[in-house]
Amino acid sequence: MNDEVSKSTAAEAAPPTGTDTTPVTDAEIFRGHEGGKLSVAATRPISQPRDLSIAYTPGVAKASRAIAENARLARQYTWAHRLVAVVSDGTAVLGLGDIGASASLPVMEGKSVLFKTFGGLDSIPLVLDTKDVDEIVETLVRLRPSYGAVNLEDISAPRCFELEDKLKAALDCPVMHDDQHGTAIVTLAALRGANLVLGRDIARQRVVISGAGAAGVACAKILQEAGVADVTVLDSRGIIHSGRDGLNPVKEKLAETTNKSGLRGGLADALRGADVFLGLSGSTIEPELLGDMADDPIVFALSNPDPEVHPEAAGKYAAIVATGRSDFPNQINNVLAFPGVFRGALDAGARAITENMKLAAADAIVAVAQDDLGPDRIVPSPLDPRVAPEVAAAVAKAAVEDGVTG
Amino acid sequence: MNDEVSKSTAAEAAPPTGTDTTPVTDAEIFRGHEGGKLSVAATRPISQPRDLSIAYTPGVAKASRAIAENARLARQYTWAHRLVAVVSDGTAVLGLGDIGASASLPVMEGKSVLFKTFGGLDSIPLVLDTKDVDEIVETLVRLRPSYGAVNLEDISAPRCFELEDKLKAALDCPVMHDDQHGTAIVTLAALRGANLVLGRDIARQRVVISGAGAAGVACAKILQEAGVADVTVLDSRGIIHSGRDGLNPVKEKLAETTNKSGLRGGLADALRGADVFLGLSGSTIEPELLGDMADDPIVFALSNPDPEVHPEAAGKYAAIVATGRSDFPNQINNVLAFPGVFRGALDAGARAITENMKLAAADAIVAVAQDDLGPDRIVPSPLDPRVAPEVAAAVAKAAVEDGVTG
Repeated sequence: MNDEVSKSTAAEAAPPTGTDTTPVTDAEIFRGHEGGKLSVAATRPISQPRDLSIAYTPGVAKASRAIAENARLARQYTWAHRLVAVVSDGTAVLGLGDIGASASLPVMEGKSVLFKTFGGLDSIPLVLDTKDVDEIVETLVRLRPSYGAVNLEDISAPRCFELEDKLKAALDCPVMHDDQHGTAIVTLAALRGANLVLGRDIARQRVVISGAGAAGVACAKILQEAGVADVTVLDSRGIIHSGRDGLNPVKEKLAETTNKSGLRGGLADALRGADVFLGLSGSTIEPELLGDMADDPIVFALSNPDPEVHPEAAGKYAAIVATGRSDFPNQINNVLAFPGVFRGALDAGARAITENMKLAAADAIVAVAQDDLGPDRIVPSPLDPRVAPEVAAAVAKAAVEDGVTG
Repeated sequence: MNDEVSKSTAAEAAPPTGTDTTPVTDAEIFRGHEGGKLSVAATRPISQPRDLSIAYTPGVAKASRAIAENARLARQYTWAHRLVAVVSDGTAVLGLGDIGASASLPVMEGKSVLFKTFGGLDSIPLVLDTKDVDEIVETLVRLRPSYGAVNLEDISAPRCFELEDKLKAALDCPVMHDDQHGTAIVTLAALRGANLVLGRDIARQRVVISGAGAAGVACAKILQEAGVADVTVLDSRGIIHSGRDGLNPVKEKLAETTNKSGLRGGLADALRGADVFLGLSGSTIEPELLGDMADDPIVFALSNPDPEVHPEAAGKYAAIVATGRSDFPNQINNVLAFPGVFRGALDAGARAITENMKLAAADAIVAVAQDDLGPDRIVPSPLDPRVAPEVAAAVAKAAVEDGVTG
């Protein structure tokens, strides 16, 4: 059966929509970045003095005075309450590592493009020339009246955990580190989709996560919240377990809450008999390791641009394979989550993004795919226009239920 | 003759372009601010997976890596090098005073609208919830990779002088406090225009400036740089002169460089025999005071929304009257300067905005109006589309001449 799935996977490797499947060239990429990828526009044109008198002096004074008298009117008469700050210090950019704020900017601009395209949300990249967590928090606190939510991006672990925690404590608005929670939401959705296809109960899966960075930690957490009882996480030194020397506080907490059976050793030890392999490590593995997993396992090889194991090789062992790549089926891409999550949070006027809001987002992604599920379609296409509105509605509803709005 | 001018002024009080001259209503103003006045757009659409692969992963990694290897490529492949940060702490917003960062945001959004409309420049409002000059500098230094220039706006004096000086020292990009220098550039242009109409030599004018805030100080400076030998400045306590008690450092410097004849006293003392009254005070004066000025004086009553003296009343005494208002002729509006100044500076890759660049901007504004000058047309209309490109070209040329580019 594994071979069957593998062949099907390879045969259907075209992107989910669109027709041009020739590789993207460097020339196309650089042309696509010429002058940057964003522009700011006026929502209403200025073509005669009257327009100027409304948008600028003297009319604007009325809007400013109204806000000065009633701070809540800023929500109505400025763009800030719906504006997402896409924030990075450039310390963990894609697979490139710590390349600095300026070099991270194309990624942040791309993120803003996606916020607009899928979530209909305005956003501005704010890249910071400091790696000091407290300075980043301080900077965003000072700028608080300028934006309505913070999407943290490409910030190295374990700093990203501390930064997110401190920002959430300091700001009265939605804050989400997408490399953690966007990945976690979409991964949970994909795992639900895969289990629906295979007729399995997600709670009874034994999941092995390779990688204890931003994504690995967040995935472990959301899978446990979603009811997966048996999660084991590995970092570059092997299985994380209680009592292992030199664990940072984040990994210490992981050790306490995961690895119920007290596994020790390396990936081979962890994978033996496991139902799900979740690769978030940035490294590669020998495909043969998958042969020791339980029958017809699920393999998500999410490292980008090079998955932990090539999907064709993984398909020899696995019932379902997913990657982060657009040139294979089952692309697990954060764009399925973050535009709708922020849109929903801002629509609801949420002061925070709660765990329930993330779980609701995952459920909404699954719901969109539900009628059309298959081994090569465990999540919707990243370009499916139905996803963000459904996610937004679910997230907004969860925000209200959690009492974090208004 | 003064009466003649006054009648003409009143008869031609329609805005320079456009036809709808009915007063703008509050309803129109608030409707014009609903949801804010700005939006962020993608420069290239995302409609198929290929677009996503170029603008985001995996393609974006090439752009990021290129910048990491050659920092100068950020100019080419991000929007930052042409992006103006419109920065305020909300301490001196229009005539409203210290209403705070959030309430200042409609003004900053309006500024961004004008940057786009007239200068073709993208900009983002960054309003800060701190009034500490060093914290504002620190914040902008940390965000330096995010933008290409800083337009300071609505920051109270004398803090604005210190802030601008420190920012210019800390940043390698154009920085300009528009309430100072935008006003100064346009005022100089208008004074040149008025003197051309009247056939007078600007160098021989005795100019009285009422107001020693951001605009008054900057106007005094630029007029002196432009060759006006006799400038006297007043603050709320009267004429600023050497030896007056309690002058702050900025006013002490003013006292040294202005008021050549050592005048003392109040506005009546200063205006006696003066050729030009320049009102930048935010207060009003008795029109009769203008009767003691030299024959056929020039009166710029620039406080907004209430000029120091009503233009009709001023017209009884003055040969030429200008205000900041769109409903009277000779509107002196910063929009004639800042879009072109920043556009020119950024086009040239300038690291700073020099005095020569400001003087060149004023000359360019005059040049646009030159063929069509009259007592009611000493500057171009704020909506004249020729102005910003001419200003930009002149500013870019001056930047190159001053050696501040590249």
